Amino acid sequence: MKILVIHGAGMNMRGKSQVEIFGPMTLPEYDAKIRAVAGELGVEAEIFHSNIEGEVINRLYAAHDEGIAGAIINPAGFTRGYPALVAAIGNVGFPTIEVHISNPARRGTASDVATGCLGTVTGFGVAGYALALRGLRDRAKG
Amino acid sequence: MKILVIHGAGMNMRGKSQVEIFGPMTLPEYDAKIRAVAGELGVEAEIFHSNIEGEVINRLYAAHDEGIAGAIINPAGFTRGYPALVAAIGNVGFPTIEVHISNPARRGTASDVATGCLGTVTGFGVAGYALALRGLRDRAKG
Amino acid sequence: MKILVIHGAGMNMRGKSQVEIFGPMTLPEYDAKIRAVAGELGVEAEIFHSNIEGEVINRLYAAHDEGIAGAIINPAGFTRGYPALVAAIGNVGFPTIEVHISNPARRGTASDVATGCLGTVTGFGVAGYALALRGLRDRAKG
Amino acid sequence: MKILVIHGAGMNMRGKSQVEIFGPMTLPEYDAKIRAVAGELGVEAEIFHSNIEGEVINRLYAAHDEGIAGAIINPAGFTRGYPALVAAIGNVGFPTIEVHISNPARRGTASDVATGCLGTVTGFGVAGYALALRGLRDRAKG
Amino acid sequence: MKILVIHGAGMNMRGKSQVEIFGPMTLPEYDAKIRAVAGELGVEAEIFHSNIEGEVINRLYAAHDEGIAGAIINPAGFTRGYPALVAAIGNVGFPTIEVHISNPARRGTASDVATGCLGTVTGFGVAGYALALRGLRDRAKG
Amino acid sequence: MKILVIHGAGMNMRGKSQVEIFGPMTLPEYDAKIRAVAGELGVEAEIFHSNIEGEVINRLYAAHDEGIAGAIINPAGFTRGYPALVAAIGNVGFPTIEVHISNPARRGTASDVATGCLGTVTGFGVAGYALALRGLRDRAKG
Amino acid sequence: MKILVIHGAGMNMRGKSQVEIFGPMTLPEYDAKIRAVAGELGVEAEIFHSNIEGEVINRLYAAHDEGIAGAIINPAGFTRGYPALVAAIGNVGFPTIEVHISNPARRGTASDVATGCLGTVTGFGVAGYALALRGLRDRAKG
Amino acid sequence: MKILVIHGAGMNMRGKSQVEIFGPMTLPEYDAKIRAVAGELGVEAEIFHSNIEGEVINRLYAAHDEGIAGAIINPAGFTRGYPALVAAIGNVGFPTIEVHISNPARRGTASDVATGCLGTVTGFGVAGYALALRGLRDRAKG
Amino acid sequence: MKILVIHGAGMNMRGKSQVEIFGPMTLPEYDAKIRAVAGELGVEAEIFHSNIEGEVINRLYAAHDEGIAGAIINPAGFTRGYPALVAAIGNVGFPTIEVHISNPARRGTASDVATGCLGTVTGFGVAGYALALRGLRDRAKG
Amino acid sequence: MKILVIHGAGMNMRGKSQVEIFGPMTLPEYDAKIRAVAGELGVEAEIFHSNIEGEVINRLYAAHDEGIAGAIINPAGFTRGYPALVAAIGNVGFPTIEVHISNPARRGTASDVATGCLGTVTGFGVAGYALALRGLRDRAKG
Amino acid sequence: MKILVIHGAGMNMRGKSQVEIFGPMTLPEYDAKIRAVAGELGVEAEIFHSNIEGEVINRLYAAHDEGIAGAIINPAGFTRGYPALVAAIGNVGFPTIEVHISNPARRGTASDVATGCLGTVTGFGVAGYALALRGLRDRAKG
Amino acid sequence: MKILVIHGAGMNMRGKSQVEIFGPMTLPEYDAKIRAVAGELGVEAEIFHSNIEGEVINRLYAAHDEGIAGAIINPAGFTRGYPALVAAIGNVGFPTIEVHISNPARRGTASDVATGCLGTVTGFGVAGYALALRGLRDRAKG
Repeated sequence: MKILVIHGAGMNMRGKSQVEIFGPMTLPEYDAKIRAVAGELGVEAEIFHSNIEGEVINRLYAAHDEGIAGAIINPAGFTRGYPALVAAIGNVGFPTIEVHISNPARRGTASDVATGCLGTVTGFGVAGYALALRGLRDRAKG
Repeated sequence: MKILVIHGAGMNMRGKSQVEIFGPMTLPEYDAKIRAVAGELGVEAEIFHSNIEGEVINRLYAAHDEGIAGAIINPAGFTRGYPALVAAIGNVGFPTIEVHISNPARRGTASDVATGCLGTVTGFGVAGYALALRGLRDRAKG
Repeated sequence: MKILVIHGAGMNMRGKSQVEIFGPMTLPEYDAKIRAVAGELGVEAEIFHSNIEGEVINRLYAAHDEGIAGAIINPAGFTRGYPALVAAIGNVGFPTIEVHISNPARRGTASDVATGCLGTVTGFGVAGYALALRGLRDRAKG
Repeated sequence: MKILVIHGAGMNMRGKSQVEIFGPMTLPEYDAKIRAVAGELGVEAEIFHSNIEGEVINRLYAAHDEGIAGAIINPAGFTRGYPALVAAIGNVGFPTIEVHISNPARRGTASDVATGCLGTVTGFGVAGYALALRGLRDRAKG
Repeated sequence: MKILVIHGAGMNMRGKSQVEIFGPMTLPEYDAKIRAVAGELGVEAEIFHSNIEGEVINRLYAAHDEGIAGAIINPAGFTRGYPALVAAIGNVGFPTIEVHISNPARRGTASDVATGCLGTVTGFGVAGYALALRGLRDRAKG
Repeated sequence: MKILVIHGAGMNMRGKSQVEIFGPMTLPEYDAKIRAVAGELGVEAEIFHSNIEGEVINRLYAAHDEGIAGAIINPAGFTRGYPALVAAIGNVGFPTIEVHISNPARRGTASDVATGCLGTVTGFGVAGYALALRGLRDRAKG
Repeated sequence: MKILVIHGAGMNMRGKSQVEIFGPMTLPEYDAKIRAVAGELGVEAEIFHSNIEGEVINRLYAAHDEGIAGAIINPAGFTRGYPALVAAIGNVGFPTIEVHISNPARRGTASDVATGCLGTVTGFGVAGYALALRGLRDRAKG
Repeated sequence: MKILVIHGAGMNMRGKSQVEIFGPMTLPEYDAKIRAVAGELGVEAEIFHSNIEGEVINRLYAAHDEGIAGAIINPAGFTRGYPALVAAIGNVGFPTIEVHISNPARRGTASDVATGCLGTVTGFGVAGYALALRGLRDRAKG
Repeated sequence: MKILVIHGAGMNMRGKSQVEIFGPMTLPEYDAKIRAVAGELGVEAEIFHSNIEGEVINRLYAAHDEGIAGAIINPAGFTRGYPALVAAIGNVGFPTIEVHISNPARRGTASDVATGCLGTVTGFGVAGYALALRGLRDRAKG
Repeated sequence: MKILVIHGAGMNMRGKSQVEIFGPMTLPEYDAKIRAVAGELGVEAEIFHSNIEGEVINRLYAAHDEGIAGAIINPAGFTRGYPALVAAIGNVGFPTIEVHISNPARRGTASDVATGCLGTVTGFGVAGYALALRGLRDRAKG
Repeated sequence: MKILVIHGAGMNMRGKSQVEIFGPMTLPEYDAKIRAVAGELGVEAEIFHSNIEGEVINRLYAAHDEGIAGAIINPAGFTRGYPALVAAIGNVGFPTIEVHISNPARRGTASDVATGCLGTVTGFGVAGYALALRGLRDRAKG
Repeated sequence: MKILVIHGAGMNMRGKSQVEIFGPMTLPEYDAKIRAVAGELGVEAEIFHSNIEGEVINRLYAAHDEGIAGAIINPAGFTRGYPALVAAIGNVGFPTIEVHISNPARRGTASDVATGCLGTVTGFGVAGYALALRGLRDRAKG
């Protein structure tokens, strides 16, 4: 079972700027954590990052053709204001879970991306990826 | 480790009305599932339900005094419009996770309760309780 | 045939304050009128009053389990801003009619409770209860 | 005692289009029902229909000069957005009751016409006319 | 195949005022163009104009009874703010196309009439009528 | 020099209802006053009343063809919400002055009709017609 | 009979800037016209100008103590957004008429000052002062 | 002279959470201060707390029947969004003063409760209760 | 200890206009009452009035340089819409209390001035000044 | 004569997802239809698709340099919220027509793209491309 | 070449309050810096400060009569909500540049004054005055 | 010292379209001017242009890694609605100045990009680049 993990705009700056908010963990370290959990859960995690909205859309549509089981997206800079991306999430044939390290609602942010997703996991730090992977795997197994 | 699980207004009607939306599972069946998962995870789940906002507030403040590890709330009918409840969630000393069977954002609903919570788990059906319990347990263990 | 009649928040002050608006009739006098009309129409009127929103919700859900024929509610102080109550009215299996002594729309008030009800009867003074009882009875006999 | 019954814009299409919403009853069949009930109640029902707002206004002002006892209006297409009609209802010397077959509040519609009326009867189907006629008659008799 | 062409409020002033905006073509010249195109396309165009909203509604409902194939409306002064007219367009059994000489969206105008129509043709000048007639004809032939 | 004086919806009820607001003067008495002042000023006042918006529009367009010098309108029930009428006032070739017996701004009403007029005279009671007639006459004379 | 004429913020620039909008007439020329008309009408016009809101308020309150018959104000730069000035106009014991050379409603401006005034005269150019003076004089004479 | 002092939702957490905002004083310590001041002023202070809105409403109506001299409310969690409570404060026959330890307006909060009260005392810390008690006593004696 | 008392725009009209709202007390009579209470409390009250916003700002900044203990302001006509005044209240080094004779919230007015003040005292009539003086004195004494 | 046809974000999924809304036709089948109609009309249709907003902008600017006769765009996922794209459509020297298979106004969507276009053709299904091609060709020929 | 430099409401408090935001520099120190830079650039800087809006307006209009080359304004407390001042900036014959020490947009403030200015320089601290002076000088030299 | 100069979406059309607004200067001519000024100021200007939002974001993040001194952006088509770009500007470690040839506030546009920038320079034409370069250089030198 393959699950696509998408890092939205600006995720490549984690650990390089705004360290006081998001902590010192860099994107490669995120990816190592995600791959480790995926291994424990017996799923394959394919990780993708782009700062270009259209490349994310292309990746989602390609995954649709590949018959992937589900996707996880931390939209970061794409959280609000990218309707084509939201539409792409809604159009593909697999479920997507939105993950945020913190809880955007506490900052008064209502995610636009969430309106296209099956569900959300927020506020658990990087552990939220593990919860979302587990949830998607269990759901797919039925 | 004890975790408080709160069912908000109208949860007592699950399986008795709106079956086409929320499925045939009744509240006692929810509770059995939650207790089973809690047992597997080695945490104690204390479950509470009321249709009276102030009684939920009282329960949260009492849990604060008892030194509970965390709480999970499916606010149901209290999802929007009950500021004293939101304030109570924000005031207590333990983290709260909001769980919804479906994803309210898909229906255009921005939860007010979420603004007081540590995080959210939505869209995983009843399995969302298991993800939230696991997340709170792992977070408390550090 | 049993019909539940609910008096919302503040109805217990009728005839005791704001007499210049709602007239000198007290809540027991309302109830005597309602019971007299019910007797003429051959229906049983069960009357309930509470200033606590959740107690009204509990009464509605209990009536659902009892298999009541319909309900009439004069929400008074609950007319706007109580979503859990509105959800309860929409969830139960029997129809509810909202009654107001005067017509809230003349004062620019759009009732939230009305959005969960089968219909409304407003502006006929206390005679509105008689019209609502008759309407529910005729509809049930159908 | 004479009561004016007004059918607003589009009522002439009842039973001819949107049958899945309003049912198969045509406007002449409405009128037969209304006249039968009026006969039972001992009142004279004068029925008027127009798709032209100003003709409805003219009819209301003429009724004011004739000294009519009250009016019933199902505004249909005139429910929102016709301030001159609302003003006319508020200016005449007799009370008007707004009747709707269904309950507009359930669809999120707040009637503008209601702001000029003595009261409303909604959600009882065609039986709402009977309730409104009875209410106006009993009120006029005192 | 008969198609109804409706000119809304103020179309009778074309070529007589606001010539700098809409050009020197008068309403009879519009009509001659529309009839010529209709002849080429083998459809019968019945043209109707009124500055009274209810007369346009009456014409639409009469066309419904006559079993017309489709309608074209240039609402002009009725573009925004006439809900009974919009409801009539939505209620009749035939499709309506809204035509504008220019493109209202360029002036920041969102047509209310469009919400009841099958589609729109804007910005082609008087040639828009020809495109709409052709479109309705081809669609009806299927 | 001919000036058209238009009475909008409901002006025919002056002196017959809402006497406590607008005083006991009836529409024929308004007209006598207006004609007397017009005689003193040496202008011809043609007076028109309708409760049907489209008939007022038709009268304005006819006056455009007749080459009238100016118009005065007390829109009454048409003050807000009739865009086709506002467009007609803006389209015709002569100036229109809006007159109100009282000052709508004191009641928080911003007239839509005013947006199409050359100017306004409000708050002078029936004497406002005299001021508007004088102003239009002096302006036309140059 | 004495009438106070107030020129609001920026009136001292008339004829010196924005000549393409307000024409070449300077404020002293306005004043000469106003005094000439006042002489013909047999009233005394006292003219006051300030760009400081509080000085206009002080002048209005002083006029209240002097027992003036009425006031005319062209608020210019004070047309919107000066609530203390609006309150002062509403508090004094004499009526105030707002005059504008053009009609602010045509530019989409709803004057705040108008909400405190007895009435308005707009759109007649500088002749509007003459109409307002005449209207106030005739009203005071009864 | 008896004065009712009401502590709204969450006041029982004072000194137990959010100590950095509201200080270390607990609710029993508030009460001791209030009783001491009441004794000095020669009035009887009856203190009531509930986290359930309807219980506060019930207490207010009971006080109405007891003929109390006035009430003081620190609404805390009930400051915004509880219309039935606001209506109850407005309906009872005695004056109510809203007290806040800090000034909600500084945080951008406009209290709904204030719209039903005689007046407010905010920003004086716990000394605000003393000022409100003194103000109510002097007013009642006045 | 010196306390500055500021009367905002229009306070000089108290007892001269709007007597039915604010009563017959004139501003000199207010001042006599304020000085008498100040004497009893052992504080010096310096009283200042202006209808010019900037003069009030200048007085506040001068008081900052003089090292005053606190200020009381009844903003009257400056209650809403004067951001430079609100900024000045927030910038100075001493606390300011806003006093109103009645309670603006009952009329639906949310004071802008309150957002810069330490606190408010409203609804106690002229006795509100005494409560505010006492509150500021006790607070300064610690 | 060459016309550029642009497919916006997500058009490549036509016939692959959301088949219940847009039907089974795939993008290559759209293109075959468009090319066939273009051939009949004697125009060359150049078709372009991208999910990357900036690539669409580049294509539009390149077409400007090539001196194309006009463009047709079905913005799909770019319908709302891409101001740079809207600006590009407005900046180029040739006219653009927006085509939608269905009528977005029926779903309450006001297209942002439309504000930059010469006109629109909506609601005719895939035949809308034919109408737009014909309209652009006839307009260019004059 | 003479350039007018205006300090708005509250600038006289710089270095005396809010030192943590705006730093320790006092207004006389600002002025010394501005005069030094002006000297280097070969322009005459005339500096003006008032907390009274109307006095700033008067200064602008006087500068118009003097034929000044341009103006720089740091509106401070006048940044939002003073339409007569904005109108004055727009009316005078010379260009005005708005300068802010910090960048108001970062705090979510959209300056009203900017809507009347030729341009803005923000976020450069006190060096912004030098940039604005240089820009105005170079522009005037042409 | 190196400064990055970014041209946003559509800047490549300068001098090729909308010449009546932005003048005949082409982007290469802008660049020549910018490089000449940079040379005089002793800074290195690296110029970058893209119509693809994500490429601009990538360039900003690369500049962060390169340790650039500051950036200047004329966002053009990206001025409003691209939150990922605004976030990138806010995330990088160097200051950015937004430059516009004209002053967007005069057109009622509040730039979204400005909310992420250190400051703005608008309204000086192409000379604004020189002012921004100078300001960044002087600031970096301290």
